[in-house]
Amino acid sequence: MSDDWKILILNGPNLNRLGLREPAIYGATTYAQLVALCERRGEERKAPVEVRQTNAEGEMIDWLHEAADRGWPVILNAAGWTHTSVAIGDACAQLSGLLIEVHISNIHKRETFRHHSYVSPHADGGIIVGMGVAGYLHAVDRIADEAQTDAE
Amino acid sequence: MSDDWKILILNGPNLNRLGLREPAIYGATTYAQLVALCERRGEERKAPVEVRQTNAEGEMIDWLHEAADRGWPVILNAAGWTHTSVAIGDACAQLSGLLIEVHISNIHKRETFRHHSYVSPHADGGIIVGMGVAGYLHAVDRIADEAQTDAE
Amino acid sequence: MSDDWKILILNGPNLNRLGLREPAIYGATTYAQLVALCERRGEERKAPVEVRQTNAEGEMIDWLHEAADRGWPVILNAAGWTHTSVAIGDACAQLSGLLIEVHISNIHKRETFRHHSYVSPHADGGIIVGMGVAGYLHAVDRIADEAQTDAE
Amino acid sequence: MSDDWKILILNGPNLNRLGLREPAIYGATTYAQLVALCERRGEERKAPVEVRQTNAEGEMIDWLHEAADRGWPVILNAAGWTHTSVAIGDACAQLSGLLIEVHISNIHKRETFRHHSYVSPHADGGIIVGMGVAGYLHAVDRIADEAQTDAE
Amino acid sequence: MSDDWKILILNGPNLNRLGLREPAIYGATTYAQLVALCERRGEERKAPVEVRQTNAEGEMIDWLHEAADRGWPVILNAAGWTHTSVAIGDACAQLSGLLIEVHISNIHKRETFRHHSYVSPHADGGIIVGMGVAGYLHAVDRIADEAQTDAE
Amino acid sequence: MSDDWKILILNGPNLNRLGLREPAIYGATTYAQLVALCERRGEERKAPVEVRQTNAEGEMIDWLHEAADRGWPVILNAAGWTHTSVAIGDACAQLSGLLIEVHISNIHKRETFRHHSYVSPHADGGIIVGMGVAGYLHAVDRIADEAQTDAE
Amino acid sequence: MSDDWKILILNGPNLNRLGLREPAIYGATTYAQLVALCERRGEERKAPVEVRQTNAEGEMIDWLHEAADRGWPVILNAAGWTHTSVAIGDACAQLSGLLIEVHISNIHKRETFRHHSYVSPHADGGIIVGMGVAGYLHAVDRIADEAQTDAE
Amino acid sequence: MSDDWKILILNGPNLNRLGLREPAIYGATTYAQLVALCERRGEERKAPVEVRQTNAEGEMIDWLHEAADRGWPVILNAAGWTHTSVAIGDACAQLSGLLIEVHISNIHKRETFRHHSYVSPHADGGIIVGMGVAGYLHAVDRIADEAQTDAE
Amino acid sequence: MSDDWKILILNGPNLNRLGLREPAIYGATTYAQLVALCERRGEERKAPVEVRQTNAEGEMIDWLHEAADRGWPVILNAAGWTHTSVAIGDACAQLSGLLIEVHISNIHKRETFRHHSYVSPHADGGIIVGMGVAGYLHAVDRIADEAQTDAE
Amino acid sequence: MSDDWKILILNGPNLNRLGLREPAIYGATTYAQLVALCERRGEERKAPVEVRQTNAEGEMIDWLHEAADRGWPVILNAAGWTHTSVAIGDACAQLSGLLIEVHISNIHKRETFRHHSYVSPHADGGIIVGMGVAGYLHAVDRIADEAQTDAE
Amino acid sequence: MSDDWKILILNGPNLNRLGLREPAIYGATTYAQLVALCERRGEERKAPVEVRQTNAEGEMIDWLHEAADRGWPVILNAAGWTHTSVAIGDACAQLSGLLIEVHISNIHKRETFRHHSYVSPHADGGIIVGMGVAGYLHAVDRIADEAQTDAE
Amino acid sequence: MSDDWKILILNGPNLNRLGLREPAIYGATTYAQLVALCERRGEERKAPVEVRQTNAEGEMIDWLHEAADRGWPVILNAAGWTHTSVAIGDACAQLSGLLIEVHISNIHKRETFRHHSYVSPHADGGIIVGMGVAGYLHAVDRIADEAQTDAE
Repeated sequence: MSDDWKILILNGPNLNRLGLREPAIYGATTYAQLVALCERRGEERKAPVEVRQTNAEGEMIDWLHEAADRGWPVILNAAGWTHTSVAIGDACAQLSGLLIEVHISNIHKRETFRHHSYVSPHADGGIIVGMGVAGYLHAVDRIADEAQTDAE
Repeated sequence: MSDDWKILILNGPNLNRLGLREPAIYGATTYAQLVALCERRGEERKAPVEVRQTNAEGEMIDWLHEAADRGWPVILNAAGWTHTSVAIGDACAQLSGLLIEVHISNIHKRETFRHHSYVSPHADGGIIVGMGVAGYLHAVDRIADEAQTDAE
Repeated sequence: MSDDWKILILNGPNLNRLGLREPAIYGATTYAQLVALCERRGEERKAPVEVRQTNAEGEMIDWLHEAADRGWPVILNAAGWTHTSVAIGDACAQLSGLLIEVHISNIHKRETFRHHSYVSPHADGGIIVGMGVAGYLHAVDRIADEAQTDAE
Repeated sequence: MSDDWKILILNGPNLNRLGLREPAIYGATTYAQLVALCERRGEERKAPVEVRQTNAEGEMIDWLHEAADRGWPVILNAAGWTHTSVAIGDACAQLSGLLIEVHISNIHKRETFRHHSYVSPHADGGIIVGMGVAGYLHAVDRIADEAQTDAE
Repeated sequence: MSDDWKILILNGPNLNRLGLREPAIYGATTYAQLVALCERRGEERKAPVEVRQTNAEGEMIDWLHEAADRGWPVILNAAGWTHTSVAIGDACAQLSGLLIEVHISNIHKRETFRHHSYVSPHADGGIIVGMGVAGYLHAVDRIADEAQTDAE
Repeated sequence: MSDDWKILILNGPNLNRLGLREPAIYGATTYAQLVALCERRGEERKAPVEVRQTNAEGEMIDWLHEAADRGWPVILNAAGWTHTSVAIGDACAQLSGLLIEVHISNIHKRETFRHHSYVSPHADGGIIVGMGVAGYLHAVDRIADEAQTDAE
Repeated sequence: MSDDWKILILNGPNLNRLGLREPAIYGATTYAQLVALCERRGEERKAPVEVRQTNAEGEMIDWLHEAADRGWPVILNAAGWTHTSVAIGDACAQLSGLLIEVHISNIHKRETFRHHSYVSPHADGGIIVGMGVAGYLHAVDRIADEAQTDAE
Repeated sequence: MSDDWKILILNGPNLNRLGLREPAIYGATTYAQLVALCERRGEERKAPVEVRQTNAEGEMIDWLHEAADRGWPVILNAAGWTHTSVAIGDACAQLSGLLIEVHISNIHKRETFRHHSYVSPHADGGIIVGMGVAGYLHAVDRIADEAQTDAE
Repeated sequence: MSDDWKILILNGPNLNRLGLREPAIYGATTYAQLVALCERRGEERKAPVEVRQTNAEGEMIDWLHEAADRGWPVILNAAGWTHTSVAIGDACAQLSGLLIEVHISNIHKRETFRHHSYVSPHADGGIIVGMGVAGYLHAVDRIADEAQTDAE
Repeated sequence: MSDDWKILILNGPNLNRLGLREPAIYGATTYAQLVALCERRGEERKAPVEVRQTNAEGEMIDWLHEAADRGWPVILNAAGWTHTSVAIGDACAQLSGLLIEVHISNIHKRETFRHHSYVSPHADGGIIVGMGVAGYLHAVDRIADEAQTDAE
Repeated sequence: MSDDWKILILNGPNLNRLGLREPAIYGATTYAQLVALCERRGEERKAPVEVRQTNAEGEMIDWLHEAADRGWPVILNAAGWTHTSVAIGDACAQLSGLLIEVHISNIHKRETFRHHSYVSPHADGGIIVGMGVAGYLHAVDRIADEAQTDAE
Repeated sequence: MSDDWKILILNGPNLNRLGLREPAIYGATTYAQLVALCERRGEERKAPVEVRQTNAEGEMIDWLHEAADRGWPVILNAAGWTHTSVAIGDACAQLSGLLIEVHISNIHKRETFRHHSYVSPHADGGIIVGMGVAGYLHAVDRIADEAQTDAE
């Protein structure tokens, strides 16, 4: 594992408004709190995390390329793009580190167009759906566990 | 109503080329003329309008967030994204002011993929289709009428 | 424009019970009030309107034929027939005056079978959806505007 | 319960030819016999019934409006309209009394287009299918039972 | 064959405007001319014909019942109802005389929703599509031929 | 009719928890009360009933075979298996006595996957949907009526 | 009209066995009788006909090319290829003379895969379905009538 | 929380053969090892777990009823029934404790029929897919975390 | 080949009633006769067979596991489960011996829901459909032939 | 049985290249070997066989007509035409002798378009899939068995 | 590369009439000119070409077998068979040389049934669509380039 | 042709990682090499090319607008957007110069969602699929050939 190894936690469109956005669906935790929670869990697990968010598909693709180049593991909540972006799916296909897909809400309980994901076929680290913000933390745990196993 | 209250008129991809773009479908009015017409109608109705256009989905989402934060009413012609962008639909869901969806051409007379809209379920102010550029003006009227009613 | 020129506002099944019928969906304005509002707007705009309603498809078709013969513009809310009647769509295809399709509720937010319209492909004057009773008034405005332009 | 309270038994297209019409499917009982049987059952159960039939959709809608205005319970065999008429479904949605949907034949054993009903979502009193003419009588019983319970 | 034996030629919605209605699709012959042509052909073939048209589905169903009771052959152009009316299909199922389905335009070259017919499964005398007004005359010929064969 | 003739009332998965299970959908009557109500109605009508429930598909199939061997009439609420079990549909096809299908809730108002039934094509005694627990009693009445008619 | 002008009556696979082949569906007339009937009708109408049959798609395409080169009218019963052969549809598109499509049985009453035709969009002379062998004769009449009109 | 509070970990068909069954898909861990891992994790987290497996749908339904009665949280891997059993979905709907759905393999990468789940709409505790046996452990963690929060 | 090597012939729901069950479809041979025929054929071919039948899916899965553990070849008629049980398909995927799928009736001639099989993708020994009871005997022959080849 | 009675084994397109063609799917046996194996099995069973192959659909149809005229049983591997040729399905419908459909590979394990067969509804002698070349031999056995039974 | 190495350019149904056939779609170049152009390009590139055309599917399959046996590269315009012939797709699967699929018109702009190709999955040399006759020449260039590379 | 005339070669998301990205699908040539190859071919053909790549949809739309304004020909590999972006399709519709669509891999051999293209209906210069990087060079050749023809 290289010195700058880290877990990239990448968030797609509208997630910057977490806490403000339809709280009945997405919960009351704000985006800033989400970032703090993830960072703290990363510290606890000795697995540095960097949390990013963008509303621009191109930026997300660039970040995924960055992770592919570095071999970093990725936790991805692609939000609305999950269901529509072949381009992001194609970027995920290039990752060499572990990819875990996360959704805050239970997308299988919502509109039919949210039931399909272009990310899932590439999520070799697993998929966590409908656990709220805690889903991110379990994903961090999962990658930390794997990293530990690999290190041993 | 706050001092900086205004109607945001947001236009999606390719609308910057209005008048140049397939005039048989979209008419001969240019984008600059559309902006002028909307602004004049806003002045007449004492409802300030600001007209914007972007070809970048992320920018559109940011503008919708801005409107959500301010409580501004929105007139949205999402153009091609209407039919494909869950992310823009999700941003619309966060609006607290009135949302009116506008399409210049009669999308229900064109290709099947134009018959579905991710914006419509959130267009609580109504949907105006196939009235050409005049559709924007009726939308401004509608919001001005509502604002007047609320003010009374 | 002939002396007896007028705007026909044609309403399909169940609209006679407006105000009584599922007010959460269709609003509290009664059918009588709708008629009065439309007539007043017509007077204001110097565009005489005649408002009719029927639960009998054959009568609606006859009225559309009458408009076709006279060259009158039509504002049509075909209600339930919108989604099922090829015959009414075929009658609309014969109109020579402007046809505007109006729906009080946001049909794109409701059951899937309300998302398709046999009227829309013929609505060369545009389509107004989910603006409540105000949709009719904007349609009257639109035809009055057009008539004025033609007269100039 | 008002003095003129009654159960409306409404029959749609072609049911006037019961007994003559495809007896292998619909049985040998004539329409006149059906009326008599329903009336007698109503008398026995102290629940006056009125049986009507029409081949005109508009007339059926008017009758449903009448029932909605009076709060009368309705037993509806919409025949062919069951599968095609949004307008009749919309009229049923307005009923305040109990609505029971009846079909003489087992429509789920016949052509696929008979498997869907626009009436069913509004049939809060239940649906009886494929019991022949006896289905009407059970529907009368059911409403009489409910009326009795309410009266107690 | 009873004394009042005749061929009923029944026309559905909008056909009263033949010649006026979309002549590029339906041709220039008027409805009055169609009637005259059919009657003349009937006289030539010693097969009295009666031509009727209605925009009211209920009236069409009544006429089909009349034909069913009398055993008269029917030539039916159900126009828009062809594709949507289960009720008319059910009425056709009751006919004991020959039923020939006629369409003036080539419905299989037009919109997909015109490709299915509720009449066809009952058209034991055959189906004639896209021969213009001449299609009616071939249908009269066909019934006259059959009647002659039966009489021999 | 043999001495041990009886009506088998067979209930599928989860119905043992009636009254506990989603009462907003299935009502407050408990399973024990359902059994008692059915037995009492059977006594009143001189038609002995036996009510059974199972969560095991194989046991349900065995009971249907038993009824097939004895020629007993069956009232079947197959619950979730209704929509998924070809095997139970095949068992129903073997019944020689009357089969009545019963559903407590209005399945046509619920999820699409509840709209299809593998039992319905075999329910020659009819189908009762959405009448709550009363549906069972009408089914008992229906079989008792038939048995009486046969006996006369 | 050139000297060698004639009507080509082209029959596709299995029609050589007419009379032998599923007579309940296709009737008892043999293929030889069909040829004779068509030729006689041609003579009566002064419209020479030539009747051919093949089980080889390539031969059928060659014949259609021949008709296209000569400007001959065609009566085509493509049998099973009707529903499956884009190649034959493409050959029909090249015809300059009238094309009439004929089917002996009522294909709209049979399996769903027989409801679609690759020939119909090109059948500018019309389509005759389910009139048995008489369908061919009406098609000959139709072309003879047209030829006469053109000649006048 | 009652004294006998525990987490039920319920496994559906074929999971008893874990480790033997298609190890390329499901991994090399045996079912016995899975049980041990879950129990140890439960001990560590002070959340007693009980792991069960069955190939009989009825037994699974009974266990879900037991959990519903006790208010126990459930971790459910319904295996093949996930995609086919409405009955198990209906049983899940009755749970009052947290339900977490687990799948060992990434079902969204496999056959289309594995993409739909009747369990998911009821999995209010979340869904974990494609994390192998570790998915169970994260589910235990999640419930333990929630229980701790509730207890605080 | 181990000493207890045998061919398991496994029969699913309703097959215990062979001969009694819809003989027009499944033939007159009884289940007992089927067993005897298979056993005799096994003896003739020196390939011991054991014939089992169950109406309980869980029992069928257990038997398939048993065969998987022993490496025994299986002849499977899963009856109604063929079309609905992912769980049984998953159990078949574990078999190491030859699997032959058998259906007595020609399922491709019956309802559409019988055209798909979850067993077929795993039937590496082949599929025999619509040969009646003889299909089992050909399957025994086939496995005996293979065993002989392997032994040589 | 007439003197020239024989089993026709008819093979469709590409089967002449058996052994050369995708051996991973179709096996290593050559077409010449297939012919020899079938002939030998026919001799052993006293059932003369004639094996033919063609890449021309018309020739295959002619052979099926020949079999229909003679009443010969047919073993048909229609290869690619199985899934696309209505014409060959129609030819099969005319056979009076037994028809057995054979496929060398397991078509239900391959592309979806290979799952449907126009031959199967007419294969009254059964269908054998995925047994390789041995499938032909079992089909010969089956016809020989039947012939023997008929002869007895 | 053997001495008789050549590029086979194979054309399917109706292409013999190029230039005559719907020139608005297929252009004005005749088939003879197409042949000459291809041959000249082949000479220029030292890659001998042989151009063939057939309306008989069987002949096309034979030519593909010939190419498969010789290892020749193929440029295939299967015309209408592209969309319907599994048999030709199966023949293409056997090719060992490069296969390039060519279509003169832009099939993705035309009817939906032209959007699918049974050839494409086997076109390992690429697919050229909608370049008119020039598409063939680019295909020749491509194969010549590859041959040159291989030779180097 | 204006002085600054050039061919724009526009590449969509993930193509900047060519050579790194799934080389089994997209080949080993890097993006830098692709640029060089295209530029050299342009020089050879006296047709200046400019190669661009972006992961931002808005930038791609701007470039297409630029080409539309200048009348430049475009070679477009829209990568993942091909299948999802109506906005890019709408931008293509505005081009006045030739548009050639290129895909490196054979998209018709891959996932179904890659079979549809929003670009194809506008690709009046043709479509080249699955020729690897060479596809770009043939596209340059094609435009150079056309430009030469126009210049002559």
